[in-house]
Amino acid sequence: MELFETIYKRRDIRKFRSDPIPSKVLLKILGAAHQAGSVGFMQPWNFILVGDLSIRLKIKELFEVENAKASENYFGERKQLYQSLKLEGILEAPLNICVTCDRMRKGPHVLGRSSVIDTDIYSTCCSIQNLWLAARAEGVGVGWVSILNYDALRKLLMIPENILPVAYLCVGYPVEFREQPLLEEIHWEDRLDLRSLIYSDIWGKEFC
Amino acid sequence: MELFETIYKRRDIRKFRSDPIPSKVLLKILGAAHQAGSVGFMQPWNFILVGDLSIRLKIKELFEVENAKASENYFGERKQLYQSLKLEGILEAPLNICVTCDRMRKGPHVLGRSSVIDTDIYSTCCSIQNLWLAARAEGVGVGWVSILNYDALRKLLMIPENILPVAYLCVGYPVEFREQPLLEEIHWEDRLDLRSLIYSDIWGKEFC
Repeated sequence: MELFETIYKRRDIRKFRSDPIPSKVLLKILGAAHQAGSVGFMQPWNFILVGDLSIRLKIKELFEVENAKASENYFGERKQLYQSLKLEGILEAPLNICVTCDRMRKGPHVLGRSSVIDTDIYSTCCSIQNLWLAARAEGVGVGWVSILNYDALRKLLMIPENILPVAYLCVGYPVEFREQPLLEEIHWEDRLDLRSLIYSDIWGKEFC
Repeated sequence: MELFETIYKRRDIRKFRSDPIPSKVLLKILGAAHQAGSVGFMQPWNFILVGDLSIRLKIKELFEVENAKASENYFGERKQLYQSLKLEGILEAPLNICVTCDRMRKGPHVLGRSSVIDTDIYSTCCSIQNLWLAARAEGVGVGWVSILNYDALRKLLMIPENILPVAYLCVGYPVEFREQPLLEEIHWEDRLDLRSLIYSDIWGKEFC
């Protein structure tokens, strides 16, 4: 699949078919993630493939708790709309993947990381975007579950203290890839005009 | 360009030709960045196109100060090797781009962001990876300069307090795209074996 087409057709997926992802396809997707650049060639990422249903049931509970709290931010029609949204596919997806960042890999000093210590996390996010695009090109959907207590998630997955869980992803063949992101389609938020986001030389100076 | 080829051929570029990037190409690249997913469709990014040479000279000074500090982490042959590395292309590249994250956009509460507040930064990094890949597909090189005091950078570019500068990128047509990342080529660090980075169900449980 062509790069720009993949970028424009990538979606955050919540509704999955149950058929598993063949190992070869999964390794191709993770291989693409592993090709991301990283500060000082640190490659701080790991991929925990969570298939076990008993673990996923507990993670689904974590989601329910956090989502109940989150829904308290809304009132009236907006609350109804929020509560109607499907915001995860933890149990339906054939696979979940937790992507982590090892804050001490190749450390304590890593080339290029002394000024901005979080560049290892930034590298991990670049790897996740590679994973997301590679999945799309293979017809596989990815949904990032951000409504979770990540400290509780860390304990469930027995992740050590120096390792940060960055993303919890639901992965599988989707029921569909929508034309637009759902939140755009339902006008939860509108897409910003690209030109309004570009400045010249300094913050706020109009781009022309 | 095909997605996987683009992912495998993307490089962190330090040596640039001086010819400018046509506006149409630049907007195509930024358009791809703007297509990244973002928590709650927050689209927290801005792109400051830094062309002004007087500003870039000051940013180059920031790099020199931080790089002198960073080189104190090395000794002997490793120090010589470190000091021989070209780690930025601030002045040679025809354009620099500062990518920022507006921590308050669409806020204070953003759908999906109440549990992990840094998901806006994660979204911005996904956007940067899109930018990097889109540039590669257009034959344009990108180099991320992480050796900078980002607070000083913020002041130089007059970026408000609630906006985080996430990346400072040098952008232009490269002298070459190397076969391998430079740090891999010179064995500064070796590429990790992908399979060793994959676990099953919980941290540390071997993937087979």
